[in-house]
Amino acid sequence: MKSWIDIKTDSDFSLDNIPFGIGLIPGSGKCICTRIGDTIVDLAGMASLGYFDHLGFKISDFEKPVMNDFIAKGKKTACRVRTIIQETFTTDFCSGTDISLLKQKALHNASDIPMLMPLQVGDYTDFYSSIEHATNVGIMFRDPANALLPNWRHIPVGYHGRASSIVVSGTEIHRPKGQIKPAHADAPVFSQTMQLDFELETAFVIGKENPLGDNISTAEAEDYIFGMVLFNDLSARDIQSWEYVPLGPFLSKNFASVISPWIVVMDAIEPFRCKGPEQQPEVLPYLQFEGDHNFDINLEVALKPEKGKEASVCKSNFKYMYWNMSQQLAHHTINGCNMRIGDLCGSGTISGSDAGSFGSMLEITWKGTKPFTMPDGSERKFINDNDTVIMRGFCEKEGLRVGFGDAVVKILPAK
Amino acid sequence: MKSWIDIKTDSDFSLDNIPFGIGLIPGSGKCICTRIGDTIVDLAGMASLGYFDHLGFKISDFEKPVMNDFIAKGKKTACRVRTIIQETFTTDFCSGTDISLLKQKALHNASDIPMLMPLQVGDYTDFYSSIEHATNVGIMFRDPANALLPNWRHIPVGYHGRASSIVVSGTEIHRPKGQIKPAHADAPVFSQTMQLDFELETAFVIGKENPLGDNISTAEAEDYIFGMVLFNDLSARDIQSWEYVPLGPFLSKNFASVISPWIVVMDAIEPFRCKGPEQQPEVLPYLQFEGDHNFDINLEVALKPEKGKEASVCKSNFKYMYWNMSQQLAHHTINGCNMRIGDLCGSGTISGSDAGSFGSMLEITWKGTKPFTMPDGSERKFINDNDTVIMRGFCEKEGLRVGFGDAVVKILPAK
Repeated sequence: MKSWIDIKTDSDFSLDNIPFGIGLIPGSGKCICTRIGDTIVDLAGMASLGYFDHLGFKISDFEKPVMNDFIAKGKKTACRVRTIIQETFTTDFCSGTDISLLKQKALHNASDIPMLMPLQVGDYTDFYSSIEHATNVGIMFRDPANALLPNWRHIPVGYHGRASSIVVSGTEIHRPKGQIKPAHADAPVFSQTMQLDFELETAFVIGKENPLGDNISTAEAEDYIFGMVLFNDLSARDIQSWEYVPLGPFLSKNFASVISPWIVVMDAIEPFRCKGPEQQPEVLPYLQFEGDHNFDINLEVALKPEKGKEASVCKSNFKYMYWNMSQQLAHHTINGCNMRIGDLCGSGTISGSDAGSFGSMLEITWKGTKPFTMPDGSERKFINDNDTVIMRGFCEKEGLRVGFGDAVVKILPAK
Repeated sequence: MKSWIDIKTDSDFSLDNIPFGIGLIPGSGKCICTRIGDTIVDLAGMASLGYFDHLGFKISDFEKPVMNDFIAKGKKTACRVRTIIQETFTTDFCSGTDISLLKQKALHNASDIPMLMPLQVGDYTDFYSSIEHATNVGIMFRDPANALLPNWRHIPVGYHGRASSIVVSGTEIHRPKGQIKPAHADAPVFSQTMQLDFELETAFVIGKENPLGDNISTAEAEDYIFGMVLFNDLSARDIQSWEYVPLGPFLSKNFASVISPWIVVMDAIEPFRCKGPEQQPEVLPYLQFEGDHNFDINLEVALKPEKGKEASVCKSNFKYMYWNMSQQLAHHTINGCNMRIGDLCGSGTISGSDAGSFGSMLEITWKGTKPFTMPDGSERKFINDNDTVIMRGFCEKEGLRVGFGDAVVKILPAK
């Protein structure tokens, strides 16, 4: 689709994408927006011109601090809104007057509009669904001969994370402090983390609720998934290794997780659906599924020092996921656990099979034993103070490109 | 304090208590209420008579589906509201006309008013702070010689739980299903849980927020705690033992947790403050504290079969807690994790040192090896279908009694 808005060929925000987010619009406040190329489209502005009248939308439906109410209207409604936007911005669809009114009421330069946290996240769950990541961690921390724990190939292992500290791209986070037990010490010490890490993840957004007590089957699961974001599950490895037995990671993770501001809807990534890895042994019936439920999404992490050029530190792909999102959701609800609009489910760190595709510094530098050399010659075992971590993700094939934008976080020194 | 409302001597709801909850008031809807004896006091009704005018309250401030906005006004404001209620209902304070108006506008029989979930819980954390419970679990599941893990005496171990499935007393829950690996099987099976358990806990309610990045010291912690509830952290032990490595309990817990409907404020339990167990080795400075931060709260669990009399299965006390709430909150935020109004922090199962004080069926029946005999002669290893679990808690000394009411849940057969 060609647009009358300028869209660079490598833009994440083609007319095929049309993601949703919350922008801070001058004079209007927090509004639901989309982005086309480097242009932010304020949907409240479009609504004021009547574009969504026949769907029953009022301007105030788009003047919202978070997306939850909009998501609650259902995937079909969001699809209709997207279709109207795609038509409106297609070349030759609008008259000169229409274009002039849209420019006046709804269009902004992306660089002028702060993007805000798009969701009120009720609950956030993180899975652990990359077999390469789980294997790497098992080799490093447990038993190289039995790297995968016995349950791993039977269960999409997951745990609950902290919703309050999920922040949007662009937030600055101070290096966290906590208890660390140095390798040969008798007792723990209080210290800032010396092993601050990222985890390259995506997360899916719940778009439909199930009542407490009811489960969601793998066949139904995608009806409950509104869209996806990039997800940086920041982790303090030294705090984690001391605290995590027996109840799992806690303070090593809950100081901040970073999401990209744009929720890319499932319709937009539909062309990139692909087969996942074969699952052996066969999973229990409630985890079995038909069709393809993985997606070919290129993922990348770059590190940028305070004064220096950014360096790509890993390139991975969402298609490596052993457990797909439909299985994750079916598992999460098999006991009747209820999902709410806006809940987030993280994939877990997505690693590929070679070192260049490992999704955390822990794996890239193999616990700090193989430091990564930056373009300025400095070395990184983990994230340094004043480094900026940039996550990117996009789908691309046959001239079609749909991307997520960046999930960026700068690490400030400990307070 | 004597009241013109009838209060039985063993009532949890003395004039010294004045807890807050959300009741469904006929004709008015969801309102903030308190309870005195067997009388529910609708605070919106009291507000309509002008009782809270000089505090700047409107009637609509009490016509709320959850307590969060009220809690956000601060502990001092809640204290002033409590004082007005205590004065109003003290013998000889009100005129006959006042009493007649109050009866007309604000008073209801407790049996007529359904009590609802009082909070929108943003995040729920569960600690593991009873040394007796952690030791019992360690003996049963790990190494009797090293029952406590190395971190346990250094860290108030905790993990994130599911907020969406926290329900109020009176809810019925179906026995959950999931993956279980029978002891001598090669592979897991899909089954309803055969080891459904309660966990006798309390939880504290966050009443003040800290910004992301800031910590709360042990000295400040109680300013951030609005009050407490009873908490039944229902657990499926067979699902738990298969899933919990390495990221902690997940589906074994997140199908439902049950709270008592009344939030008992910290002022009400102040007279029951007491010393906690000695902590050895000495904890790190950020976990050290001055003064007494335990509370003498009697706790009890009873089981009631479908057709039969209830039996008390354990009696414990909150004062046994090794880690106190101030330490839990200081630890939770030492990395800058932000708390929000209405967040809940569970104590973890509270066990005492003898078998009669163990706070879970797992411990009471020692993993099912020593079944509990009910008054009707039937045995319990864990919770049976159609059993009702009743948790109770109260403080009592020198004629002063402050209680929590019941946290009740009936277990229905698996769907």
